[in-house]
Amino acid sequence: MAIRIEGGVTAPKGFTASGVHCGIRRNRTKRDLALIVSDRPASGAAVYTQNLVKGAPLTVTRQHLENGTARAIIVNSGIANTCAADGIEKAEAMCRLAADALQLDVDDVLVASTGVIGPSIVLDPIEKGIPALVAELSKEGGTNAAEAIMTTDTVKKEFAYTVTLGGVDCVLGGIAKGSGMIAPNMATMLCFLTTDAAIDSRLLDEALHEVVGDTFNMLSVDGDTSTNDNVILLANGAAGNRPITEKDADYKTFVEALHALCADLCRRLAKDGEGATKLLETKVYGAATVEDARTVARSVNRSSLLKAAMFGADANWGRVLCAIGYSGAKVDVTGVRVRFLSRAGEITVCENGAGIPFDEDVAKTVLTEDEIVIEITLSDGEAAAVAYGCDLTYDYVKINGDYRT
Amino acid sequence: MAIRIEGGVTAPKGFTASGVHCGIRRNRTKRDLALIVSDRPASGAAVYTQNLVKGAPLTVTRQHLENGTARAIIVNSGIANTCAADGIEKAEAMCRLAADALQLDVDDVLVASTGVIGPSIVLDPIEKGIPALVAELSKEGGTNAAEAIMTTDTVKKEFAYTVTLGGVDCVLGGIAKGSGMIAPNMATMLCFLTTDAAIDSRLLDEALHEVVGDTFNMLSVDGDTSTNDNVILLANGAAGNRPITEKDADYKTFVEALHALCADLCRRLAKDGEGATKLLETKVYGAATVEDARTVARSVNRSSLLKAAMFGADANWGRVLCAIGYSGAKVDVTGVRVRFLSRAGEITVCENGAGIPFDEDVAKTVLTEDEIVIEITLSDGEAAAVAYGCDLTYDYVKINGDYRT
Repeated sequence: MAIRIEGGVTAPKGFTASGVHCGIRRNRTKRDLALIVSDRPASGAAVYTQNLVKGAPLTVTRQHLENGTARAIIVNSGIANTCAADGIEKAEAMCRLAADALQLDVDDVLVASTGVIGPSIVLDPIEKGIPALVAELSKEGGTNAAEAIMTTDTVKKEFAYTVTLGGVDCVLGGIAKGSGMIAPNMATMLCFLTTDAAIDSRLLDEALHEVVGDTFNMLSVDGDTSTNDNVILLANGAAGNRPITEKDADYKTFVEALHALCADLCRRLAKDGEGATKLLETKVYGAATVEDARTVARSVNRSSLLKAAMFGADANWGRVLCAIGYSGAKVDVTGVRVRFLSRAGEITVCENGAGIPFDEDVAKTVLTEDEIVIEITLSDGEAAAVAYGCDLTYDYVKINGDYRT
Repeated sequence: MAIRIEGGVTAPKGFTASGVHCGIRRNRTKRDLALIVSDRPASGAAVYTQNLVKGAPLTVTRQHLENGTARAIIVNSGIANTCAADGIEKAEAMCRLAADALQLDVDDVLVASTGVIGPSIVLDPIEKGIPALVAELSKEGGTNAAEAIMTTDTVKKEFAYTVTLGGVDCVLGGIAKGSGMIAPNMATMLCFLTTDAAIDSRLLDEALHEVVGDTFNMLSVDGDTSTNDNVILLANGAAGNRPITEKDADYKTFVEALHALCADLCRRLAKDGEGATKLLETKVYGAATVEDARTVARSVNRSSLLKAAMFGADANWGRVLCAIGYSGAKVDVTGVRVRFLSRAGEITVCENGAGIPFDEDVAKTVLTEDEIVIEITLSDGEAAAVAYGCDLTYDYVKINGDYRT
């Protein structure tokens, strides 16, 4: 069983990290360049945005991961390096600068960028920042790296888990950034995961895709799928477990731990969605297929009307029904039950697709909490899914009304 | 050629209408019950929401339109008559109350409702309101009907056009209400269209579907497809033109006039979207297919990030590219041009899928207007489409954060 521990991307053995302000952003107190390094070759896997407009760093990272191994990841915030004519060249140059400083092969360095789409990245501040970035690589540096990748995030996101694989304690850690432009099928999100478990790179890739489908692809802040999203996972084997090379019990345990880690990051990302005051978890049960369950959960989770109602602690369950109805999933709408749950209690508001009398005061109390579960039980089968989202607030509009200035 | 004239649903010959406060809503100054009547049998056509959760009135209207003719439409605002166990019975009763007062067959009365999903409609106020509603039927009553169907709308929507068919002046008129829960594939919108042109009911249905595909189905306020949307069109032949029975020049002229009327209503609905300060028209050219053009236009038009940027008059074209990229349409993203246009001028901000230098002050001036065109030129073919939308504002959140109270 996976147990949550302190730390993030440097919690696993053999990983160090750092984060500095190099000058891509004007604000000198905001770190804008991060580095994550494994002290030995690591298996690498990644999942990329499905947006046709892709950031240049994704293309370069994909090429460098073709051999399934990597040693380092360099990341900047402030500029997305997307839709710029010199994007590939600049992303490649970022890898080379890091590779030279770390004395690695350029193909062993991955790259990611987040920020405004359009402007060219200026390499000068990155080049000047790299000596400090390398000098500061440490176990403690994981937190600085988590800060350096933040854009409109208000809190850094880092989590770690320990798990026993083949009798050996292994650790998984991760950092991530949101927080707008987040939608299913990869969001604006950058996420870097590390583990000291030894696992075959093909299985690593499979595990990552399996978990991402259940977690990051079920995350939505505003329905916009970003151009730069990716999740990268490095596994360096420093824990010394017998390498996982088949889908045995260890593989299953590893996937469960990875799922727990990614679900934590998703909850944190959703709760810190742009302008958000509440985490919304939409849990769907009783769907005919997993795809139907996911479709319903995502549709409810991204409804602007419902998100605004949750901001106002308004038990407007009609909007839940409405979003189920237009989701595209095959659902018997006369068999739907809807409940709202939070630390403060729980309340059933709809049975058999129709409203039932309920105590508005209790509903208000339940919905005034900052973590809400919208529980939808269908009558179509046994499949389930969870989507992670947040409320829609004045501040979302404010943040996005003038992001570039 | 269709020429815009004063008036709305009573502009065509033979139609009268009225709108009263009957008491479904508490606010005594808000009309909440409307009636539209043709003085002779009219051909009828309708397009309904694609939401699986459908308001009961839609089911009843569909049944009553099975013979292709109708005489009257009764509409209430305040309660949607959706997800209530007695919905069908109540919707049927509303038709019967109107039919009895007008001495019509119940099957000749159509019904629509808009408002909160869930509560049962109480028939008592409607029954008490009907005598006044019938007594006030008049040519001038069209405006009262337009007011009675409003919910969170801030302005009433009515337009009319005159057009010559077979040498005879014919008139088309319409009223509509928005203004949240509006999305492609029928929105939250109720729209009632009338014409004194004579046209075969099968062709009337075809014309309505053709025009709705280009107009109402390209309208989005917040991406939520309502449970109650419908567009109803009645044609009573009172103008005395030779009935349109085939797809000749008159049919084409009629479709053009209907398109002009519906596009006007869409622009007004979008501009009065919940909390909106700006009308956004997303015009797409150069797409491989009409479906691709529509997909791109809708995707850009409903991007929360872009809508918030437009609220802030921020020329953040990267969000346009991003929404094109995740739209699902087949697009060569390296061949995209983006321009912003308004009364104040125009500015090109992206060529060949990449940013170009532009004057931020000019962009601000262009985007500070209240009607903005986002022009997207693709390099994939010749197809075009237009989507109608609005910006995302603090007030959208405010209105929807506590709609029911």
